[in-house]
Amino acid sequence: MKILIIGAGGTLGQAVAEELGARHDIVRAGRSHGDVRVDLRDAGSVETMFREVGDLHAVVCAAGKVPFAPLAELDEAKYLAGVQDKLMGQIRLVQAGTPRLRDGGSFTLITGILTEQPIVAGACASLVNGAVEAFVRAAAIELPRGIRINAVSPNVLTESMGSYGPFFRGFEPVPAARAALAFARSVEGRQTGQVYKVW
Amino acid sequence: MKILIIGAGGTLGQAVAEELGARHDIVRAGRSHGDVRVDLRDAGSVETMFREVGDLHAVVCAAGKVPFAPLAELDEAKYLAGVQDKLMGQIRLVQAGTPRLRDGGSFTLITGILTEQPIVAGACASLVNGAVEAFVRAAAIELPRGIRINAVSPNVLTESMGSYGPFFRGFEPVPAARAALAFARSVEGRQTGQVYKVW
Repeated sequence: MKILIIGAGGTLGQAVAEELGARHDIVRAGRSHGDVRVDLRDAGSVETMFREVGDLHAVVCAAGKVPFAPLAELDEAKYLAGVQDKLMGQIRLVQAGTPRLRDGGSFTLITGILTEQPIVAGACASLVNGAVEAFVRAAAIELPRGIRINAVSPNVLTESMGSYGPFFRGFEPVPAARAALAFARSVEGRQTGQVYKVW
Repeated sequence: MKILIIGAGGTLGQAVAEELGARHDIVRAGRSHGDVRVDLRDAGSVETMFREVGDLHAVVCAAGKVPFAPLAELDEAKYLAGVQDKLMGQIRLVQAGTPRLRDGGSFTLITGILTEQPIVAGACASLVNGAVEAFVRAAAIELPRGIRINAVSPNVLTESMGSYGPFFRGFEPVPAARAALAFARSVEGRQTGQVYKVW
């Protein structure tokens, strides 16, 4: 399969590229690295990426930023920054990517444990993840030509505990390589509308 | 208790006002009717409403619009219309309303069955509902002074089947009066971070 990985230079993206790269052709996309550049906040940039890459069997997203701040400090601009990046960015991938996917191809989006298990300063992340997961369930029943869509919801990554550790006290971190398995399960399985929890 | 109901003129809002009005003082807010006017899409309008109404024991939202359209026709403007209204509108209520709520007061927001059970043309509604529910779980652990927050997720309303029926074939509609009970459970109970499903 020819698989596009957005955020392929990140901790999770590298692990997904390693897992899927053992069996498939990987095209790496990123904001500043990779075979092709993309800014998920910009619909035109997403369109250009798909034009450059050509037809695909699968689109995998391991990218998307959200601001972390205490609830009282989350102003409208911060919410919209998260909405524009990790939420609308992933929807742009589905909108622009659907015509580029072969019959039976798949989207695999990224959410995270905060959908269900909140942390202090994580309200925007929770909101965005909850939106993406509900969107995945809804899009799954409408995508054409047997195209599938799932999300992977990892716990905090072991590799990220250096920076995120203080926010995730008591959470059981998972190695990026374990989270990457869920992406393979989505891409190489047949289910759709699923949220694969890695926690 | 003094309870502000946004969307009090709607089918659900009227039922909530009737249920809670039997025991409490109700202030009705709406886009075009009510004791006070508010447009949830406008942060300034939400601020003005709270200034006019004064201190409160509870804020209840039974309002919020989202566009319905097939997935392929949901463009960025449509998604953002739903995000600005039912999603950010309810977050604006929490942001501007928190300083107006007495200790131990509560917010009760509105979502709907589409978070978990999608329908064709409902992807934006699913997305918005999923976002609000995850936000409720997250905000619950950060709101100050014992302030609580829950969401009510009703099935399609019996009273709305005339217009929504074709979209919700096979769903079991619930009377607005039954959905209103969940609002009372949120306002008059003590739980927080809950999604009360009425289906």
